[in-house]
Order: sequence, then C-alpha cells, then structure tokens
Amino acid sequence: MAGFYTYGPLGKLLKNNVENSIRKVFVKHDMFEVECPTIMERKVWEASGHLGGFTDPLIKCTKCKSNFRVDKLIEEHNPDLVVGVTKDEDLLRILKEANLKCPICKGAFGDEIMAHSLMMKTTVGVDTEAYNRPETATTTYLPFLRYNEFFRGKYPFGVFQIGKAYRNEISPRQNVLRGREFTQAEAQIFIFPEQKNNEMFDKAKDAKLPLWTEEMQKGRKEPETIKLGDAVEKKLIKTKSYAFTLNLAWELYQEMGIPVERIRFRQHHSDEKAFYADDAWDLEVNLKSYGWYEMCGIHDRTTYDLKQHEKFSGKELQARDENNVKQTQHILEIAFGTDRPTFALLDIFYEKKEKEEGKTVFRLPYHLAPLKVAVLPLMNKKGMPELAREVYEMLGDEFQCIYDKSAAIGKRYLRNDERGTPYCITIDFDSLENKDVTIRDRDTTEQKRVKIEELTETLKKLLRKKLTFADI
Amino acid sequence: MAGFYTYGPLGKLLKNNVENSIRKVFVKHDMFEVECPTIMERKVWEASGHLGGFTDPLIKCTKCKSNFRVDKLIEEHNPDLVVGVTKDEDLLRILKEANLKCPICKGAFGDEIMAHSLMMKTTVGVDTEAYNRPETATTTYLPFLRYNEFFRGKYPFGVFQIGKAYRNEISPRQNVLRGREFTQAEAQIFIFPEQKNNEMFDKAKDAKLPLWTEEMQKGRKEPETIKLGDAVEKKLIKTKSYAFTLNLAWELYQEMGIPVERIRFRQHHSDEKAFYADDAWDLEVNLKSYGWYEMCGIHDRTTYDLKQHEKFSGKELQARDENNVKQTQHILEIAFGTDRPTFALLDIFYEKKEKEEGKTVFRLPYHLAPLKVAVLPLMNKKGMPELAREVYEMLGDEFQCIYDKSAAIGKRYLRNDERGTPYCITIDFDSLENKDVTIRDRDTTEQKRVKIEELTETLKKLLRKKLTFADI
Repeated sequence: MAGFYTYGPLGKLLKNNVENSIRKVFVKHDMFEVECPTIMERKVWEASGHLGGFTDPLIKCTKCKSNFRVDKLIEEHNPDLVVGVTKDEDLLRILKEANLKCPICKGAFGDEIMAHSLMMKTTVGVDTEAYNRPETATTTYLPFLRYNEFFRGKYPFGVFQIGKAYRNEISPRQNVLRGREFTQAEAQIFIFPEQKNNEMFDKAKDAKLPLWTEEMQKGRKEPETIKLGDAVEKKLIKTKSYAFTLNLAWELYQEMGIPVERIRFRQHHSDEKAFYADDAWDLEVNLKSYGWYEMCGIHDRTTYDLKQHEKFSGKELQARDENNVKQTQHILEIAFGTDRPTFALLDIFYEKKEKEEGKTVFRLPYHLAPLKVAVLPLMNKKGMPELAREVYEMLGDEFQCIYDKSAAIGKRYLRNDERGTPYCITIDFDSLENKDVTIRDRDTTEQKRVKIEELTETLKKLLRKKLTFADI
Repeated sequence: MAGFYTYGPLGKLLKNNVENSIRKVFVKHDMFEVECPTIMERKVWEASGHLGGFTDPLIKCTKCKSNFRVDKLIEEHNPDLVVGVTKDEDLLRILKEANLKCPICKGAFGDEIMAHSLMMKTTVGVDTEAYNRPETATTTYLPFLRYNEFFRGKYPFGVFQIGKAYRNEISPRQNVLRGREFTQAEAQIFIFPEQKNNEMFDKAKDAKLPLWTEEMQKGRKEPETIKLGDAVEKKLIKTKSYAFTLNLAWELYQEMGIPVERIRFRQHHSDEKAFYADDAWDLEVNLKSYGWYEMCGIHDRTTYDLKQHEKFSGKELQARDENNVKQTQHILEIAFGTDRPTFALLDIFYEKKEKEEGKTVFRLPYHLAPLKVAVLPLMNKKGMPELAREVYEMLGDEFQCIYDKSAAIGKRYLRNDERGTPYCITIDFDSLENKDVTIRDRDTTEQKRVKIEELTETLKKLLRKKLTFADI
C-alpha cells in the first residue's frame, strides 16, 4: 500500500494554503471551480484514451521477480535523458546497452516488457464496471454543455477542479511526488480557434519567462528569459492564448511561494508530446532533493477531448461562435497538483539554523505558513494564561493560531520556528499591567511590544506586507 | 451510474463556503484538520467492521428483477417509522403485512433478503485487495500515535477530516442526499474516560438545545428545548463531554446557515444504536422537500475503534494519562457531510418571489452566498465597462465577485437574485463623474450610493453585519 499518504495537522494546513493560493489566481482571471465525480464508468475512459493507452512499461527481474518501470530505470541511470513515449524494443535495447541490473538483487531482467494499466478498477451497483479517475481533466470536460449555459455562450471561459486522482503506479516513490492517490489541480480554458490570438491575451505579452525550448535543450543547460510577446513573434510559442496560459502557470507557482529562480519552462520534445497536443511545455521546479522536477504541464489539447466524448456519448458537444456557426471548442489546459508544490515548499524552505546546532526553521513565505500566530503565556500563572487565552480567541477570528502554554519560552520559540510560524505573541508580567504583548518575528527573531487593542491590525498589515517589522 | 454528482460553478462555491464554515467552528475549538487516504487495504476494513457488517438488506422484484433496499421501502411507506437494525425475518414480515409491491412495475417481491455490500473494491499494485473508504472516520483513527505526538500527549484533543467517501448504495436517490460518492466531514475527539465530566466541558452547559429523547419519541411529536447542564443532571445525556459534542454540532449547523427552528436532536432508539455506541443522537433538519432528515450523527464510540485497530495491526494504540498509566482513549465523534447541508440551503432558501411571477430568489444567509458581489456596468459604452472592470478588480481582492455586462440591468438584478448574490454594484453615468456607484441589497431591493473609495470597507462591514443597509 505504498504511495498513499496522510497529511497531519500542520501538513494539511500547508496544503490548504497551497490550494487557496491556486483558487486566488484562477478566480482573479474570472475562472470558476467545479467538482466532478472521482469515479466514472468504463466508457468515459475508453473515450479519453486512458483504458487503451494509460499504461507503464514493466519489466520483471528474472531472479527476485520484482517489477520495475523500464523508463524510470533508464532515467535514473542517466538523469539527463527524458525517455517519454518510446517503443518497447527501443527500451529493451537501451536497457541492454547500459547493462542495467535489478536495483534490489542485481539480477538480470527478462526479455519481455509488460503493459501495466494505471487504472484502478471498481464496481458500481451490482455489476457496472467503473474506475477511480486517473485525472480530473476528463471529468471536467463532460459537463461542457452546462458550462456553455452558465457562461451564456461567451468564449473563452475557464473552469478548474482541485480534487483526488488515482494512478496504480507499480513503484510509487519520492514521497508524495509520485503517489498512487494525489490531489490534482487542473484548469481548462475553452476557446474558439479564431480567438487564439485575440488581443485580450496581450496582457501577458510583457511577462518575462525562463523558457528552455526544444532547440536550446540540445546545446545549453540554462533556459533563456524571454518576453512572451517576443516568444510568440519568434514562433517559439504558437499562439497568444497559449502564451497567456504559460503565464498563468508562472503566476500560480509564484503565488504558491516557489522562488522564481527555481522555476523554468521546458518545451516538450516532439517525440514526447501526446499525439493530440499542439503545443506542450512543462513547468519544472529545481528541488534540493531531486533537481529539476516536472510540476505542471501546459497543453493545447485542440479539439481532441470534446470530439472524443462527442463520438462516444453520441451527444453533440459544440457551441455557436459569433457568426452563429457551430464549432467544437479547443481546450488549453494547465495540469498540475497540490501535493508536489506542498512538498516543494518543505524541500526548499525547511532548513538547519546556522547559529543553533541541530535546530531547524521552516522559512516559507509568511502567507503560506500553516500557523500564522502562536500565542504563548510566559508563565502558567498569575493571570497570564487567562489573558493569553483572551488574546488567542481574539486573534483566532482572523488568523490560524495556536495556543501553546507548555515548556520554557525559548523552547516554544524554537518549536514555532520549526513549524514556520511567522509571529509569536508572548504575554508576560508587563502585559497584565500595560495591556501589551511582545511580537517576535520568525526570520529576524527581533521582538517588539504592541498594545493588545492594536494587535489584530498590526498582524494583518504585517502578513499582507503593508507594514515592515522594523516600522512597528 | 446514478448517485455521482457534479457541482457546477455556483454549486461548488456554495459547497466551499459550507466547508469553510465547518473549518471555522472546529478551529475555534482548537481542533486540527487532517487528510488521510481514500483507499485502504482489506485488513483496515476487517478491523473497522465494515467488511463484515456494512451491508444493505436487498430484495428483488420477481417480475422486473429490480433490486430495492427493504428498510427504505418500509420507511417510505410509513414515514414515522425508523427501521434501523432489524432482522431479515422481521423485515419480510413487515413487508408482507403492509402488502408492499415493486415501485416500478407493481410486481411481487421474492422471499429472500440478500446482504448487499456497500464497499467499493479495487486493486492496488499487482494484486493487493483494497477498498474506497466508506467513511473518513476509520482513516482518521489510524495515525493516532502521530496525533499523540503532535498534541504532546495532552488530552482531550480533536482532529477532523473533510473528504470523499463511497457507498455502493443499491438505489441512490434524493439528489446528493443519498449519493454513492459524497463528501464527509467528521470530527473525532480523543479523551480519557475520567475526563468525560471535566469542568472544561461546562462551557456548553447553558446552551439550550431542542432534544427529542427516546422517551419523548413514544408520545410527543416535538422536541423539548433543554439546557445541556440540566440534561446531564437528569441523565438524558450521559456525560458533560458528550453534551459539549452535541453543542458543537448545534454550532456547526447554525454556522452553516440552517435556521434553528429547523433543527432537532433525536436520540437513537436502543435497538437502532450501533453495538459499540454508548450515547448516540442524530441532528435532524426539517427539509421542505423531505421533512425531518438525518444530517449528523453524534456518537460516544468509547474504546471500540482503537481497540479494534490495535488488535488487527498488532501495534499498541494507547497513551499515558496524568498518572503515567497507559490507557486506550475513548472517542467522541461528530459524523456528517457537506453535500446534505449544501442541499439543505437550496431546499430551505431557494424560493419563488411573491411579487414577480415566475421569478426566484435564493435567500440564503449572506455569508454563505456563492457570489458576494456582482459588478454591473449600466451600459456597455462611454467608459462604464472600463470603470466597472476597475471596481471589479478592486473588490476581487476581498470578495468572490462576478462581472456581468450583458442584458438589461433589471434582468441582471433578477439573475443575481436567483444566484443569491447579496449585493449588486451598478456603474452608471453619474459614476463616471462622481466616482460613486449604487449598491443594491438582495432582500430589500433597496439601493444606496457609495463612493468607490469607500466601497470595499462598506461591503466588508455589511457582510460581517457590522453595518446595516439602512445606515449607509
């Protein structure tokens, strides 16, 4: 049962913050969230192509009988290589040339590659064959005619879904980066083909993104920072709307707290691209643990999905354009998840303290911290816990707080540094008399005194960066 | 594939608001959210008892071969009856005495009751038997030792989970009220038995709840409003902590916008109670469509769960009390979901307008409205759309808004009444000159003019009920 994870109290708060960052960005661009079933019947997955082609190439060790994904074995052996969609005979040839052996027992591999389905099958009712969804995207496409109604036939429009998806990976690994159950966040923009270079997408043209084109990948290790407007003119990117979608991914990962210098956009190789994709790039994040890692796919899926579902359902999935002509919409997709960015925050920002040996601090951006404020009575007597509790309840209306009364104050500071809590509020002897408290800043460990009646506003401004700690 | 639902743009916003209301209440009581796998292996469900006993009694129509749940057939025939856990022979007898026929073809039922498992089975890896979880609760119990660590052995503490669960109902019905996939929200309070009458629970003692005890259910149709302190003294409720948990459910349903007069607490009959439950009540909501409907179960599950999982896992699931003695925790549970309250809001508050024939308004509490503000340029020219868009972007930082420029202004007001939008902001000719707008209130349809620079603050105060519309 590897590949299934529990998020504990702090992890779940962190993940919720990541998910709310995503909502914030999509909503800013007038997109609406939807929630679709996580289980759908066989026919849906025949239409989407998942039942036919959604498999991993598996090879068995002749000695210990363990199963491995061939493409991953090769990529781990040669980290610069992206295997992508490759024929079985080519995989076997590469495996043989590199003389790869079983990572567990060093045994030899067999000569046969098996196609292992990633779909988790179940039964609904008495005997209806159904599957846990392998992605949210397909489930988002099906209610297309309802969206057409809600948006009153005005295109382009966007919907997104944040929800569970399932892939029966044969070797789940790397923590939540490659789980069998995970939370996807996928947005779909429905658009008429003649709108793809619409001037509304010009608002992204001045954004500068680190683009690593297919051409660049042959020679240079670094992406080049290019204005999206220029990239479209130079035909590195096919349409303005696709450039806009790339920029949306760029905004998302910044809002989720990933430092820009750790982000790059890698263009798919021609032989790696799904057959229906017109333009395809990945957003990659440079992780301390694993190097550059795929975090988000941006695809122009053209009419593929709606045409497939139209064919399999027998229901017309088209809308009328401005000239009242029926057409199938194209779909621009941003496909990512919330487990990987959550992991990335820990990977990038959880660090050892320089000055205190063996101590750690989670230096993530303040707006993403699981707990925003810790309220600490200096001592567990003389009215301090009572006043602290009052302060805690007051702040609780605005921020995710924790009330923490046990252990020495220094230990409680350390504990909250480790959790990433931006501000510790301490209630001491003077607080009882002067109705004020100390605020301690996580990153500088500086402390200031603030009146209790001004505390909520001060913290609000600090967290929204409308006030610096030095200016209190 | 009945029993699987999609929430569209407005439905999902509503459901998110319901879920955030739940978070607000639990967090206020120092409880922490967790997220656990939605798929677990066979052994977990053997331990929880779901694989053995989690079945519905099914009967087949001898004519059209349709399957039905016997208990629900009986309850629909006699709405005053709660069937609960009843032996097969008794179910058959009641069915025969009432002379019930197949609701589809009026055919006769057979003589055999089948046990239909509600579990949805799947496979993980190559051959590991696993199931989509039928509830969140069990998955919340398993990481008990981790919680013990996070809360540093201080009891009682509470954790909650909001997430998907699956029941392969044979006849899903009543919209999202009885789906096959649904979102549960379940909180678990871990407590030592000697803490169950702890004075910390006295804070709930003055709350007055509409209690409909088992005794009352024999004679009277109405619950009696009783102070929880008195209910504990009269032994209607066994412990202070259980009374506190009932009150938590009461707070939750109020925060979710359900009017108090539509809520009652119904004590379980002795023969309806799960065998491990020490105290068990349901919170019921009076729906316009279906009458009193179960919305939430509050259970004292005692040591049942941790003991079972200890037995099946072979891992000690105990913690040390204040005297350093190892004990198994008791669990107080609030089990409900977010689909039913979302439905309840529509059921209760979506109504026909009195004065305008054929028109509807969704009069739900403002803080739960899917869209808080609609921004409407009066006309699509002369700078109005540009200014409206500016206002929309300004408000978008604070509220879930919609920008709506098409159709006559009256039609746009009606559209937003139907969606439940509390406030419509109109940008008209005067707005361009005076930098002000009109605010229209959904429930009174009154309008006021407000300066654009004061708009955000005014709307914030209105939505937080710190300002009345009349006082603008």
